[in-house]
Amino acid sequence: MKFNKIIIAGLVAVLGLTISANAKSVKLSKSQMKKATQVYFDRCAGCHGMLRKGALGPNLEPKKTKAMGTATLKYIINNGTPGGMPGWGKSGELTKAETSLMAKYVQIKAPMPPEKSIVDMKKSHKVLIPVAKRPKSPQNKNWKDNFAVILRDIGKIAIVDGKTKKVLSVVKSGFATHITRTSASGRYMYVIGRDGKASMIDMWMKKPANVAEIRPCNDARAIDTSKHKDYLDKYAVVGCYWPPSIVTLDAETLSPIKIVSTASYTIDKGVFTREARAAAIIASHHKPEWVINVKESGQVWLYDYSDIKNPKITMVEAERFLHDGGWDLSKRYFLTAANAKNIISVIDTKKGKLVANIPSQGKKPHPGRGVNIDSKKYGPIWGTGHIGSNDIVFIGTDPEDHAKNAWKVVKKVSLPGKGGGNLFIKGHPNSPYIFIDRPVNPDRKLQTQIYVMDKESLEIVKTIKIPAKYLPVYKGKKGKKIISRGPVHFEFNADGSEVWTSIWGNKMVNTPILVYDSKTLKLKHVIDDKRLVTPTGKFNVTNTMTDTY
Amino acid sequence: MKFNKIIIAGLVAVLGLTISANAKSVKLSKSQMKKATQVYFDRCAGCHGMLRKGALGPNLEPKKTKAMGTATLKYIINNGTPGGMPGWGKSGELTKAETSLMAKYVQIKAPMPPEKSIVDMKKSHKVLIPVAKRPKSPQNKNWKDNFAVILRDIGKIAIVDGKTKKVLSVVKSGFATHITRTSASGRYMYVIGRDGKASMIDMWMKKPANVAEIRPCNDARAIDTSKHKDYLDKYAVVGCYWPPSIVTLDAETLSPIKIVSTASYTIDKGVFTREARAAAIIASHHKPEWVINVKESGQVWLYDYSDIKNPKITMVEAERFLHDGGWDLSKRYFLTAANAKNIISVIDTKKGKLVANIPSQGKKPHPGRGVNIDSKKYGPIWGTGHIGSNDIVFIGTDPEDHAKNAWKVVKKVSLPGKGGGNLFIKGHPNSPYIFIDRPVNPDRKLQTQIYVMDKESLEIVKTIKIPAKYLPVYKGKKGKKIISRGPVHFEFNADGSEVWTSIWGNKMVNTPILVYDSKTLKLKHVIDDKRLVTPTGKFNVTNTMTDTY
Repeated sequence: MKFNKIIIAGLVAVLGLTISANAKSVKLSKSQMKKATQVYFDRCAGCHGMLRKGALGPNLEPKKTKAMGTATLKYIINNGTPGGMPGWGKSGELTKAETSLMAKYVQIKAPMPPEKSIVDMKKSHKVLIPVAKRPKSPQNKNWKDNFAVILRDIGKIAIVDGKTKKVLSVVKSGFATHITRTSASGRYMYVIGRDGKASMIDMWMKKPANVAEIRPCNDARAIDTSKHKDYLDKYAVVGCYWPPSIVTLDAETLSPIKIVSTASYTIDKGVFTREARAAAIIASHHKPEWVINVKESGQVWLYDYSDIKNPKITMVEAERFLHDGGWDLSKRYFLTAANAKNIISVIDTKKGKLVANIPSQGKKPHPGRGVNIDSKKYGPIWGTGHIGSNDIVFIGTDPEDHAKNAWKVVKKVSLPGKGGGNLFIKGHPNSPYIFIDRPVNPDRKLQTQIYVMDKESLEIVKTIKIPAKYLPVYKGKKGKKIISRGPVHFEFNADGSEVWTSIWGNKMVNTPILVYDSKTLKLKHVIDDKRLVTPTGKFNVTNTMTDTY
Repeated sequence: MKFNKIIIAGLVAVLGLTISANAKSVKLSKSQMKKATQVYFDRCAGCHGMLRKGALGPNLEPKKTKAMGTATLKYIINNGTPGGMPGWGKSGELTKAETSLMAKYVQIKAPMPPEKSIVDMKKSHKVLIPVAKRPKSPQNKNWKDNFAVILRDIGKIAIVDGKTKKVLSVVKSGFATHITRTSASGRYMYVIGRDGKASMIDMWMKKPANVAEIRPCNDARAIDTSKHKDYLDKYAVVGCYWPPSIVTLDAETLSPIKIVSTASYTIDKGVFTREARAAAIIASHHKPEWVINVKESGQVWLYDYSDIKNPKITMVEAERFLHDGGWDLSKRYFLTAANAKNIISVIDTKKGKLVANIPSQGKKPHPGRGVNIDSKKYGPIWGTGHIGSNDIVFIGTDPEDHAKNAWKVVKKVSLPGKGGGNLFIKGHPNSPYIFIDRPVNPDRKLQTQIYVMDKESLEIVKTIKIPAKYLPVYKGKKGKKIISRGPVHFEFNADGSEVWTSIWGNKMVNTPILVYDSKTLKLKHVIDDKRLVTPTGKFNVTNTMTDTY
């Protein structure tokens, strides 16, 4: 037995991998390791981390997983947990063999993923259309009302005309794009793939196309641009999951300028965290500053980019593990979710300080950017939903004129039924309503409805059922009939008169974008285009430019 | 052969170590590995890095060392190189067996040294004398003129009365102390050992003693305190080599407050450098800021400590690899040596920017803090010597009133003879001379002289030969007769009327401190005390408080 262990350790060392010494060592072939490493990256790393130290999901280091054993791990990977772990086998995303492979793989020490230098990045850098050959003026009259729609599972972005509702172009992006952001002028739409590939689309073109691309990371979730008036359209910034870092880029060409490591010490026990990942990035409108969530260490970094090669970073202790967030109505305060702790951390970007860590009164807050309301009753408030509970909560954000409401939950509203599952919530100053999705609720009926909340009463005043004809049926593994999930994510047009949602399908079918009148709540348009495969996030140029939500 | 390789890799993996796969693999037993790891830490890590990526010394990763082979490595370790590598065998510091062991060890992949959390640090934290039990007023009338003298090889600090020249006390410190710094008031003397142990001595006590200690790192070179008027005696800060980090401490108790990682990307190729070490730290007098050299990445960090848990750090690109440096006369500009590149980088701490990278016109500049002169001819200038050449150079530091001299070498003076070997240079506003040592010059005569430079003519006006009676003889390995090295390091008393130097001996003998009149250059006192074993750095309370040099 001991002999075997040594042989395995040696073999794996030769492969550039190491394996934890244990009497019941798990064996995987080189091809199995390769396969499992890919599956881990695609399905597991987001929540558990590449080094498996844990974040939204628990620690999965061999010390723990070996104690659990293969059978238990297989059960969990197959069935999921009430804590939020998806049942990858049950849902058909992983086969039985893959489930079994992953149960073994997570008992082997995580291989150290590769680093990336500026020199490495430059190899992936392409200026597809030089600045001089790009249009000198917008070639679409209504370009500021156009939408970028993420076609998640096919690695593409659809640019849809906000007026005609026609798909103007479909451009390639990185894998499973997480977000798109515009430059301050709105001209360029920046896209970051889950695989760390950044690309930029020129929205002035008649058929908007990619004009530059680069791969600054191997895993990423965030991109934004310089929005301060003295730096309009000057810089882009990528928040990398791996290597854990912040990469600044030239906004016209995506040429890399600077890398800053986010490896840092946790705010609680002061533990060095190699994998402290740059999660959300949001650009200040008032200062030459990006607000960056460093997920695992629980810090919010205020990154002053005014001297781009010599950044000044204020490292604010907030809470672990930071996910996403957005501005309050004044754009002075950044409200962000530490979703594993059910906390909303509030950063005062004027003072560069933490204002409060507020219990969100729900499970796993998932604000996206959240929603802002200038409420008659409460004053300015910011709201978020939760993945793990039915709660939509609102927090007062005006300590000056509404001090008694500030930095606490002033209203909590429960979505009907059970099972939580909200991902996004969206508003617009010109809409009397806010819109709420629930695509990860297990109940089919609850999953396929839009929840409409009145901005004054803060009550759910309507649920809009998605007609079955807009929920395509497709074949899953083993020919199983699967109906598309419900609507996911909302975006308004520029004047707030329409709200768009999309049906979360599978890459085997195309699914529509549904356009509702934001006042009458009537379905105005159905954008049904063969190219719209897995449309998820939708980003209107004007609302993204101005951070309107 | 292949079988052997696998077995070794496996065995070393079991030991928590890994070994590079190669047909000619080197084998070391567990006890040999332990011994070699200790020798490497003591002798090699300072210049080559714990991870062997190279800094002042070249890269020593297995890819390179294996190509060199055991015989070549053994030769170099024994004989040294003209580039500055000491001949460890030749000098008798390593035995033949140790030389041979190290030639093998450096062909094996560096083991990853352990991390250290705030929780870990707290285990080593001791308040030896609580604040309430310390004196309420100074118990020595002349305490501000007392000296802390590093007894390097015995891990102790001698406190010497600046007036009576008596040794008041000898206190324990970390191993091979690199530097001591005072609090802003001068009351406490902070000491950092090469082994990362920090301690603080209460200079108000009749017999100054340690009042607190902690080990925030496993390897360190720098310590300083908060010197801005609003934070006097409030914080201490340690610059750690390993784990590469900046650790802030409470200045009265050394209780740990915050750790910031210095792992960062190099300024040239943007390469992630886990071992980017916090080298020198110097406290600003004008701002609540520490100026910190991050050696391997080539950055100077301006660390704003005004909000101690939420620091604001300006990361200024300077040059690789940063070592030590000091203030100009106005204390606005920090001049620091990138010694492997023969560059002096100048940071304007008012603007938080690099002013210039100035070729030092010599080999391996080693300023310590350097020396400042308000020259009639050149205006304010700052000077440094070099380890690798005979050059003492002066750089103009006043861009406003002496613009044509600013940020260039205005004067270069050659020390007599050959072989470089200067380590320290020191001045005081009340002394007409600056004093220069040369302890690492191979020539016995040149090594045992003090070089006296006139501050106006900038010429060497005298060499003071150390009488043989102050250079004790002792027995080296195999009974070889060895004479102590020459004088090393200078410090003035508070009013600048005296300059102190010490004889760099070996831990088998005590060596004296020699006190010269700084005007007549006469030897005034010889402090000869059995407890003064390997006296090296000497720090006068007033001059350290005020950064006078």
